Amino acid sequence: MYELFSVDDHIVEPADVWTSRVSSKHRDLAPHVLTEGGREFWCWEDKREATMGLNAVAGKPREEWGMEPARFSDMIDGCYQPAARARDLLSNGIFASVAFPTLPGFGGRKFATFADKDLALECVRAWNDFVIDEWCGAAPEVFVPMTIAPTWDADLAAAEVRRCLDRGTKALCWVEDPANIGQPGYHTDHWDPLWDVCQEAELPICMHIGSASAAVSLEGLIPIVQIAAAFAGAAHSSVNMMCSPIPRRFPGLRFVWSEGGIGWIPAAIERADRQWLRHKAWTHLDDTMPGEIARRNMWFCMIEEPVGLSYRHDFTVDRILWESDYPHADTPWPHTQDSVTELFASVPDDERIKITRTNAEQLFKFPLSQRLIDLHAPAVVA
Amino acid sequence: MYELFSVDDHIVEPADVWTSRVSSKHRDLAPHVLTEGGREFWCWEDKREATMGLNAVAGKPREEWGMEPARFSDMIDGCYQPAARARDLLSNGIFASVAFPTLPGFGGRKFATFADKDLALECVRAWNDFVIDEWCGAAPEVFVPMTIAPTWDADLAAAEVRRCLDRGTKALCWVEDPANIGQPGYHTDHWDPLWDVCQEAELPICMHIGSASAAVSLEGLIPIVQIAAAFAGAAHSSVNMMCSPIPRRFPGLRFVWSEGGIGWIPAAIERADRQWLRHKAWTHLDDTMPGEIARRNMWFCMIEEPVGLSYRHDFTVDRILWESDYPHADTPWPHTQDSVTELFASVPDDERIKITRTNAEQLFKFPLSQRLIDLHAPAVVA
Repeated sequence: MYELFSVDDHIVEPADVWTSRVSSKHRDLAPHVLTEGGREFWCWEDKREATMGLNAVAGKPREEWGMEPARFSDMIDGCYQPAARARDLLSNGIFASVAFPTLPGFGGRKFATFADKDLALECVRAWNDFVIDEWCGAAPEVFVPMTIAPTWDADLAAAEVRRCLDRGTKALCWVEDPANIGQPGYHTDHWDPLWDVCQEAELPICMHIGSASAAVSLEGLIPIVQIAAAFAGAAHSSVNMMCSPIPRRFPGLRFVWSEGGIGWIPAAIERADRQWLRHKAWTHLDDTMPGEIARRNMWFCMIEEPVGLSYRHDFTVDRILWESDYPHADTPWPHTQDSVTELFASVPDDERIKITRTNAEQLFKFPLSQRLIDLHAPAVVA
Repeated sequence: MYELFSVDDHIVEPADVWTSRVSSKHRDLAPHVLTEGGREFWCWEDKREATMGLNAVAGKPREEWGMEPARFSDMIDGCYQPAARARDLLSNGIFASVAFPTLPGFGGRKFATFADKDLALECVRAWNDFVIDEWCGAAPEVFVPMTIAPTWDADLAAAEVRRCLDRGTKALCWVEDPANIGQPGYHTDHWDPLWDVCQEAELPICMHIGSASAAVSLEGLIPIVQIAAAFAGAAHSSVNMMCSPIPRRFPGLRFVWSEGGIGWIPAAIERADRQWLRHKAWTHLDDTMPGEIARRNMWFCMIEEPVGLSYRHDFTVDRILWESDYPHADTPWPHTQDSVTELFASVPDDERIKITRTNAEQLFKFPLSQRLIDLHAPAVVA
């Protein structure tokens, strides 16, 4: 059995994440679940969300998939119950899992849209405490704590990351490019307080596709395009970062692009390096090539990408991570072991182990539990 | 000497393109050149353009490059004089050239911003007549006529393409995704009149990076990022097209993505095909895979991309084209032959010839002139 570390899964938040944690004055306006007309809605301030689960289709036949589960009862328990999640993952040989938020949006960016920023900050903290106490608390050997930050204020963001580091967080969930959500981008010093704390703590900064992409078409695209083309956003934001002053001034930062795939990276580096050499004289760029930044400061992730994987040595095996994407449509679960067997059929063992396990163990400083492996491996093999 | 077909060069329009062609009532508001404070400006309606040449740096040392030549006299003659252009290209073994507009924007999209749409339509026609009569007229064996269309009206666009087909045009210059410039996109039947005429005439539809990208960051990016990350726009729009109904309803359409590179395409196809298989049941997609569309309806272009070129068989050698990008910063000119020698060092001759010549000859129905080859080849070799 392969012993796997998934750097990209998704939490569907239980109904009481915010109502049980925010102060009483904010309770009515914080996100809560309303039942109406046979379905459930997340509501906050004067807003209402149309989906309860964002493509949480794990365990269902493809014919029954949809973008919008209407009720918690439309989803399998592992979507929103941490104990059930841990069982589902362990049954597939996944012994560690980094999980992204759903209601808060990737990077927690939805809270930046709240009218009341005191409420918003309380909601950020509530999600972070929920993840550390309740989600990771249910299976602390499996769940890697990840933290969101206020995306509307660099000092608040740095302070919240510091607070969560004291509570044991192992990763920051951030947005691909804040410039695309109306915030200063990566060619300013605006976010330096956040970079300072992340560099000091060697905290991985995970950015999921769709979190703040330039490459979101203005047209209402069909689901297949939203998912298939989303790597373009990871491509744009990572090349922007490769060429920005941030990783040059903070050489210890660790950026992870989640669910963006890996096969386009050698081409992106080749293009950026060529442009760097051609334009460095007149635009006064330094000698650190974009490809050097990519191989030093960046990690990229893949679910099932055999062609992309065949290009791995044109990037580097040391910066590729595996992801399960449970419970979204991209997940190979419950056939994870078969997927990994097929995907790595022609890849040497030492490279497979780096990509599916040890790269992530080192990056997140979260070694797989030998106790759990001893407990579950025989059962899965049998 | 390699005999080359460049599918992507750039015309810097001479000052009288519009003033000498539009009707007298429109002359004052049509694009014209104004000299002020030691530099020149394009002016139209109540607008003024800050650049005369958009990175037209060919023939200059890299230290002297810039995004904004301020005067025609800042550029070498080949930027805006067709006879000089033909000489420059022929001296480098480039025997055919498709050239994009500058002032009109890629795809001619700038005219859609004109307040007076009668003026705008006259300006579209003026550029098209200039290209056919004056630009291509100066060296009809070298210059492949390309046509822009009104991007604000499907019927007008189809009519203008028909008019230019009667005048001998060989290509349409279009926008990557009209949805990104406020027009209906590729999941509507809005553009059917245009697709009808292009399919019937087997007219290649060329879309340059930056023409209408989703992947344009909202932040004012430094030039290196604008150029290095621009492939993300080609990636997003081509994947959108691979998954859209257009090439399924018009299976004879020929789309060319210009200056977007090629190395990311196998990964894009792999991702789109995987998503297609996973999502086709519940979103009612047909059995034509995105990768099949890519290999049937799409061509992609490359200047110098050795790593990307090494992945060519994961796409197909038959759909890759070579481009020179004269007179922009990406051009290998005046060292084109050295560039091609190095780039194709480990590529078999038959594949190099397809990519640098015969694929384009067939696509544009524009065979290289044996007379010019006989005339120029010995001189270049010597």
